[in-house]
Amino acid sequence: MIWYYGHESKVRQKGFTMNSQEKLPRTLQIQIDRQLKNADAAKYFLQRIPAKAKDKILKEAAREIERSEKKIIRENAKDLKQARRDGLSPAMIDRLTLTPARIKTMADGVRVVAGLEHPVGRVLSSWKRPNQLKISKVVVPLGVILIIYESRPNVTVECAALCLKSANAVILRGGREAFYSNRVLVAVFEKVLTRYGVPKAAVSMIQTTERRVVDYLLKQDHRINLVIPRGGETLIRKVVEQSRIPVIKHYKGICHVYIDKGADLKKGLQIALNAKVQRPGVCNAMETLLVHRKAAAGFLPALGEKLAEAGCEIRGDAQTCRFIPKARKARAGDYGYEFLDKILAVKVVNSLDDALEHIRIHGSGHTDAIVTRDAKAARIFKNEVDSSSVMVNASTRFADGFEYGFGAEIGISTDKIHARGPMGLEGLTSYKYVVEGNGQVRK
Amino acid sequence: MIWYYGHESKVRQKGFTMNSQEKLPRTLQIQIDRQLKNADAAKYFLQRIPAKAKDKILKEAAREIERSEKKIIRENAKDLKQARRDGLSPAMIDRLTLTPARIKTMADGVRVVAGLEHPVGRVLSSWKRPNQLKISKVVVPLGVILIIYESRPNVTVECAALCLKSANAVILRGGREAFYSNRVLVAVFEKVLTRYGVPKAAVSMIQTTERRVVDYLLKQDHRINLVIPRGGETLIRKVVEQSRIPVIKHYKGICHVYIDKGADLKKGLQIALNAKVQRPGVCNAMETLLVHRKAAAGFLPALGEKLAEAGCEIRGDAQTCRFIPKARKARAGDYGYEFLDKILAVKVVNSLDDALEHIRIHGSGHTDAIVTRDAKAARIFKNEVDSSSVMVNASTRFADGFEYGFGAEIGISTDKIHARGPMGLEGLTSYKYVVEGNGQVRK
Repeated sequence: MIWYYGHESKVRQKGFTMNSQEKLPRTLQIQIDRQLKNADAAKYFLQRIPAKAKDKILKEAAREIERSEKKIIRENAKDLKQARRDGLSPAMIDRLTLTPARIKTMADGVRVVAGLEHPVGRVLSSWKRPNQLKISKVVVPLGVILIIYESRPNVTVECAALCLKSANAVILRGGREAFYSNRVLVAVFEKVLTRYGVPKAAVSMIQTTERRVVDYLLKQDHRINLVIPRGGETLIRKVVEQSRIPVIKHYKGICHVYIDKGADLKKGLQIALNAKVQRPGVCNAMETLLVHRKAAAGFLPALGEKLAEAGCEIRGDAQTCRFIPKARKARAGDYGYEFLDKILAVKVVNSLDDALEHIRIHGSGHTDAIVTRDAKAARIFKNEVDSSSVMVNASTRFADGFEYGFGAEIGISTDKIHARGPMGLEGLTSYKYVVEGNGQVRK
Repeated sequence: MIWYYGHESKVRQKGFTMNSQEKLPRTLQIQIDRQLKNADAAKYFLQRIPAKAKDKILKEAAREIERSEKKIIRENAKDLKQARRDGLSPAMIDRLTLTPARIKTMADGVRVVAGLEHPVGRVLSSWKRPNQLKISKVVVPLGVILIIYESRPNVTVECAALCLKSANAVILRGGREAFYSNRVLVAVFEKVLTRYGVPKAAVSMIQTTERRVVDYLLKQDHRINLVIPRGGETLIRKVVEQSRIPVIKHYKGICHVYIDKGADLKKGLQIALNAKVQRPGVCNAMETLLVHRKAAAGFLPALGEKLAEAGCEIRGDAQTCRFIPKARKARAGDYGYEFLDKILAVKVVNSLDDALEHIRIHGSGHTDAIVTRDAKAARIFKNEVDSSSVMVNASTRFADGFEYGFGAEIGISTDKIHARGPMGLEGLTSYKYVVEGNGQVRK
């Protein structure tokens, strides 16, 4: 089965010139160039596939993942064997491990994507000009997306599904530690795509662990429209420094909760606890708590108790330590640090302005929250905190594509260009202007 | 007069570390760093200024430009003197020259910006989640914008006004040939800003022509949110290669018009003429005309005549030369070349698909048009041409912020990230999520 308007396109390609300094072995470069050309051709094909057909392919991919369970586990075992040989940490080995239950979860994830609304083709706005030109702003795919990620093989499936849904060709560059797992998962997609007459280059993977390939890819801005790095800060910084292609990213989440004077302290306590200990290892967990000095006496002792119960260490300024004797004295470096652990920096501030200033200096533009009963304080906080998500009387942990109702999350961006904050399928699209006339010319 | 909520902020700054290889003289680096810090502080201030106050400042700036006419002309004369000494072309000297009439036009341009709708603060969408969290997507400024441009001093005024309107701090880096003109224009803005109690760093200029400063600036991605290069392709490519900050740009406009079989040839002729000769030196002018072979005999002879009358040279393939004997034979390099002149490449194609393929190979993603009476052909063209503007039965020359009704144009983007196509004030904004609750925590 093939879906297109019935006119096949012979996509030839622009001459490709190499102008970067990265010395890639010649045969490898030829291979990568061919892969990029194929992805480019697949991108045009994808735009012709009707929405329903894409969902059908996705559902079939979900079934095929389940059918391939044994093969996936076999390939995953190769990665696990190597991981043990390389002495990877138990946490990393756990992230790498695929079980029948996890494979089922991946397949169900693809079904969820199949059920989402299609982002592409939507008319964002449309207007008529005095000269009767009709102008429409229409959502289009980005084109070719490069995903660079680490360890978890489920990212492979998730990204393949989201890119297919949004009619983007995707090039996957997973970590070497998950090479065999990623390869078998991509093969599943290729098989299903081929079955439906779609060029398999719509979902492809870099078939080598050669590191220079990444540097080379990051210079191919005439072939790749967007890079999404998913992984640790070191990986992301490297990608940003090397890339000539736009990058959507967030380095880290230094999330603050500020307890205002006169705040509902019970709610404040719930929010602070939730933001810190419900899942301390994620980017939207709180790292620093700021407390107005007039709220300190009423709030901090109870907080100290609750956090101690939860096994959470407190590093506070002198004021904090007065109210929480068990707290350690904070060092300067504790503010603005991403603990990703059951450790919380606490500071007593003199005013809302001091809190805002602290966030400006130490925040990372991810998510910050205020707990307050004062409408004016809430308004100032909402306006002036320059973060991708600003919470009023709610936990920072809500900064998440699923919690916002997007049905999917490609990542979180702390950039201000293109998508910002939790990024759903919309983040994988652009738009174009379609101008319709009846012979108009410019005067 | 000072507008803010009545609580002053003592904006301190993050420690600044230099980690680029560009050796900037130490005193100069300190000076640039201070300027960046001040722009950063000004950015927060700008967000507090009410919309009406910004318009008042803009109108005052317009008046001040007019009042400063003599001083502006005096400073401009210094640039002109140097330009003549350096042997700049008459065209470049003309672009550089400020006359009382041109100064009045600049001032009126600022008044137009004052009258535009404010992009910032608008709620793009707002929804409630099952847990009663209210989520709003709110337009915010980008922060600090760096503009790198060449020769025309009116860009200084235009960019200052647009950034002020959208509550962004702007750092201007004009060409050395317009140094004195730019400096006096920025001084006018600084004077007005100071008069209204706004930090003058909201509009600042790099006060040196030292070239290494640009390389240094392009690495300051923690201070600058967006770079807009305005100038020739060489300048833009250099900026993209150096920049760690997102860049909005277009390299060039290789715009195509395709005359479909069965098209209204009279309209086709009007559109082709308008697209080519009305203003050949701009990026939305047509560079290549594609004609369906069934339309060639009816269309090309008349086109040949009209273009000859307009003094436009034709470079055609063999088919074209059959119908237009005066046409020169096109060489391969003529297709996909940006003439920016009264020269047109023409090619006869066998089908719509061939036209699409030609555009894919030679286009630059700027603007392409089809002239057709066939609704299906129009639909395919609209869907498959991957350009920022796609025209049906209209001249490519309409691809323009003013023609689209944006009231302003910051530039045209052929990127797919962030703004695409003609970019109005909206392109200078981002958004944030504001989440309002009453104590919600994540389960």
